Amino acid sequence: MGPSEALEKLHLIDRENRRLERAVAVLRWDQETYLPEKGVPERSEQLALLEGIAHERLTSPETGRLLSELGSTPENPGGDEKLPPLERDFLKILRRVYERAVLLPRDFVSAAALAEGLSQAAWISARRDNNFSAFLPHLVKMIDFSRRRAIYWGYTEKPYDGLLDIYEPGMGADEVNAVFNPLGRRLSELFKKIAVCPRPDSSFLDQDFNVEDQARFSRELMRRLGFDSLRGRLDVSAHPFTTTLGCDDVRITTRYLGRQIQSGIFSTIHEVGHAFYEMDFPAELRGTCLADGASMGIHESQSRFWENVVGRSRSFWEGMFPVLRSYFPAALSRFTADDFYRAINLVEPSLIRIEADEVSYSLHIILRFELERELFSGRLDPADLPAAWRNKMKELLGVEPESDSQGVLQDVHWSMGAFGYFPSYALGNLYGLQFWGKLKSDIPGAEELIAQGNFAPIRSWLRDTIYVRGRRLEPPVLLEAVTGKGLSAEPFLAYIESKYSGVYGI
Amino acid sequence: MGPSEALEKLHLIDRENRRLERAVAVLRWDQETYLPEKGVPERSEQLALLEGIAHERLTSPETGRLLSELGSTPENPGGDEKLPPLERDFLKILRRVYERAVLLPRDFVSAAALAEGLSQAAWISARRDNNFSAFLPHLVKMIDFSRRRAIYWGYTEKPYDGLLDIYEPGMGADEVNAVFNPLGRRLSELFKKIAVCPRPDSSFLDQDFNVEDQARFSRELMRRLGFDSLRGRLDVSAHPFTTTLGCDDVRITTRYLGRQIQSGIFSTIHEVGHAFYEMDFPAELRGTCLADGASMGIHESQSRFWENVVGRSRSFWEGMFPVLRSYFPAALSRFTADDFYRAINLVEPSLIRIEADEVSYSLHIILRFELERELFSGRLDPADLPAAWRNKMKELLGVEPESDSQGVLQDVHWSMGAFGYFPSYALGNLYGLQFWGKLKSDIPGAEELIAQGNFAPIRSWLRDTIYVRGRRLEPPVLLEAVTGKGLSAEPFLAYIESKYSGVYGI
Repeated sequence: MGPSEALEKLHLIDRENRRLERAVAVLRWDQETYLPEKGVPERSEQLALLEGIAHERLTSPETGRLLSELGSTPENPGGDEKLPPLERDFLKILRRVYERAVLLPRDFVSAAALAEGLSQAAWISARRDNNFSAFLPHLVKMIDFSRRRAIYWGYTEKPYDGLLDIYEPGMGADEVNAVFNPLGRRLSELFKKIAVCPRPDSSFLDQDFNVEDQARFSRELMRRLGFDSLRGRLDVSAHPFTTTLGCDDVRITTRYLGRQIQSGIFSTIHEVGHAFYEMDFPAELRGTCLADGASMGIHESQSRFWENVVGRSRSFWEGMFPVLRSYFPAALSRFTADDFYRAINLVEPSLIRIEADEVSYSLHIILRFELERELFSGRLDPADLPAAWRNKMKELLGVEPESDSQGVLQDVHWSMGAFGYFPSYALGNLYGLQFWGKLKSDIPGAEELIAQGNFAPIRSWLRDTIYVRGRRLEPPVLLEAVTGKGLSAEPFLAYIESKYSGVYGI
Repeated sequence: MGPSEALEKLHLIDRENRRLERAVAVLRWDQETYLPEKGVPERSEQLALLEGIAHERLTSPETGRLLSELGSTPENPGGDEKLPPLERDFLKILRRVYERAVLLPRDFVSAAALAEGLSQAAWISARRDNNFSAFLPHLVKMIDFSRRRAIYWGYTEKPYDGLLDIYEPGMGADEVNAVFNPLGRRLSELFKKIAVCPRPDSSFLDQDFNVEDQARFSRELMRRLGFDSLRGRLDVSAHPFTTTLGCDDVRITTRYLGRQIQSGIFSTIHEVGHAFYEMDFPAELRGTCLADGASMGIHESQSRFWENVVGRSRSFWEGMFPVLRSYFPAALSRFTADDFYRAINLVEPSLIRIEADEVSYSLHIILRFELERELFSGRLDPADLPAAWRNKMKELLGVEPESDSQGVLQDVHWSMGAFGYFPSYALGNLYGLQFWGKLKSDIPGAEELIAQGNFAPIRSWLRDTIYVRGRRLEPPVLLEAVTGKGLSAEPFLAYIESKYSGVYGI
């Protein structure tokens, strides 16, 4: 078999893998949006079967043989140096995906999947009943499965680095710590300064906002941001998410509260940011394993950029507040864009990560990162997690949860074994502001464009500098290619300090 | 391997096949309801892949070996006579499904699937442009693929019988003809008598009926009929359908016209009838190939029974019209249940099958059956189909379409090669009334129950006599088991003649 024939076969395997992934995404999307209550157990069986088939096909000896034939090895994943760069990147990523799958014994994968299902169910009841000890045995198992997974992948010394690498390739705990350390310190300082300032009035956000009108406004917002509804949808789910069912079928969900209008608005903008990334990969990557985000952190940089840098800016609401007010004249007619801007940027210590403001959000992440590190280094016993959580909350945010439901049990991630995921959120904040710096130097009038509701030049810039590369570059390389710099918390901190000094008149 | 081990393996293969079928159903349901416009081509690729995988698994040599090991052969599909009756029925149906798949060469299956896709697209344009000759080459191919399919299955002499057998096992063209012949004659006679009677007033059905109120009423109707919304859903699609995504996830769709309120109502009731069948298979058949309708005709007997015998009866609207009127007081306050009953039972010659009343509906089917028979016997050249259609319409219904779009191009079935499907609809009418005769003798007060809105005893009867058997019995055997009689048009004709003599005062 010649190299071109082998490449063609690998591309077919890859395209079919993607199609199976998309089919799985359809079933999952439906599960979160429209599945009738009693259909859940059968849906799990359908998903387990499809995922089993996908795993079997991906790890077939043929995939390994074709990769080797093209010179791709674990040490030289890109294969033969005479291949075009795009094909070398394709081999590199496919090798990575293949290795990750093939290094895990089949029995281990089934056992982990089963244990995750039970653990998530146990977490739901434990959170409801505020009963950490009922969840503890599952948590211990999840840590163990994660550690073994990392060890199978070769992270024998530092298993936690293997977990971080799933979500943020090329980034170990030490690198993360090196940026989180100063980030935490500076955010804490600002947070303390704000705590003694007078609070902006945000009480008018807590009125009755008709949910159907909120949904109509969300659709208008999506349209104005440039979301192409021939290539995607907006639906409602308990936890907002973005999912890719096809290159031309990217769906987002949001949720509306009967009061607190900002919840639905910012969920929608956040998910639109994820969707733009997924929708705007270049045609040459379409349907391949390269049509994907560079990492979870880079993905979050897009969602959090649109949500916060664009969506929580004064410029944005200069243009958009009159539109919002036209949907809710009774509730909002007495207020201005500036009132709204100040209200949605209220900073206050919150027990719950997903309700946190921009200043304290990263502190919630740092807390989780530090606890995960201690769990995997063996310095922290899982049984002592609730106490450790309370201490760190006190230290970082000055508040302490009264219950574990409001504390260590609040997030789903650990119950499904997703250790190493949390840092992506805070890294996303940092990447996002590094990109924004470069964007503003390339498009000096970016803020006026936002005020005019003209978002297309910003999206184009993101597409041409970031999305165009798909998953070809690892985050540090991508960051360097786009901004010419390495990872730094400075742009994010400068943005936060300047913005919130303004809001709070510090 | 002992027989019990072989059986267990076959059951696993079967269960996984069903799960794959359900996953395919999720993707198809989504395609008809919520898929963004530009997602269609990728969805086709996803479906082709999943269906290819399902076909490959079903036709694996292991399936054949296990069937043989249990004594199942094409001549003795039920296998070893010492097996329990349920297992013998399981083997019989799995052997049938396996044979149907394995006898078709893989290349033939792909070529046919591809041609069907192109043919359906060509049909859509041809119908839109009223251009039969643009569709003709595709139609010729569809006939050819269907004929070859039947020949692969062994129907060398009478390929059309092989096609009928897909939808109505155990029923050939001669058997169908023997009941359609007197049916057509008697319906035509009645139709001519009605044509000279004064028309009931149905003009009040043609008012503005708010679509959202129609949707709310459809949900109320479903609930009152007994549809469990924890085990299913109602959505909207261009063409109403029922689909099974799991034993506990049976979904129906309907459509609402801004005027003509009866359209959405009767689509909903029709699909509820299909859904009851799919929801009410007994636990012992759950997840197996036996948890299915006995045939398309038996399935239509359920939908058309609920739609017509129940839903278009005077008793039904005695109870339900006040409810309907409460949703549309302005439009309906001046009318009575009896006015409504007469209006929805208006009989008039229609060019379009799906708009036809109960009297003329079967005539539309007989026309299609006779044309299909002639096409497959070679007596009719596909090029002459438009003229043959017009002649038969004139002969059977006394009207002639002005365009092929309103004539030979109106239905999707032929464009996808579904020859032999149409008779199911008319057979469903006949089965339904045979069942109704037995039901009324078992539950003498059935009509009062309908008037009281108490549908549970009727549904229970259907469950305990028909649904309980799943796909275990072929239609003639099922009919005999339930009613003690063979197929007959008499009960249907007696019902139609009596009902419409009443409506028209003949």
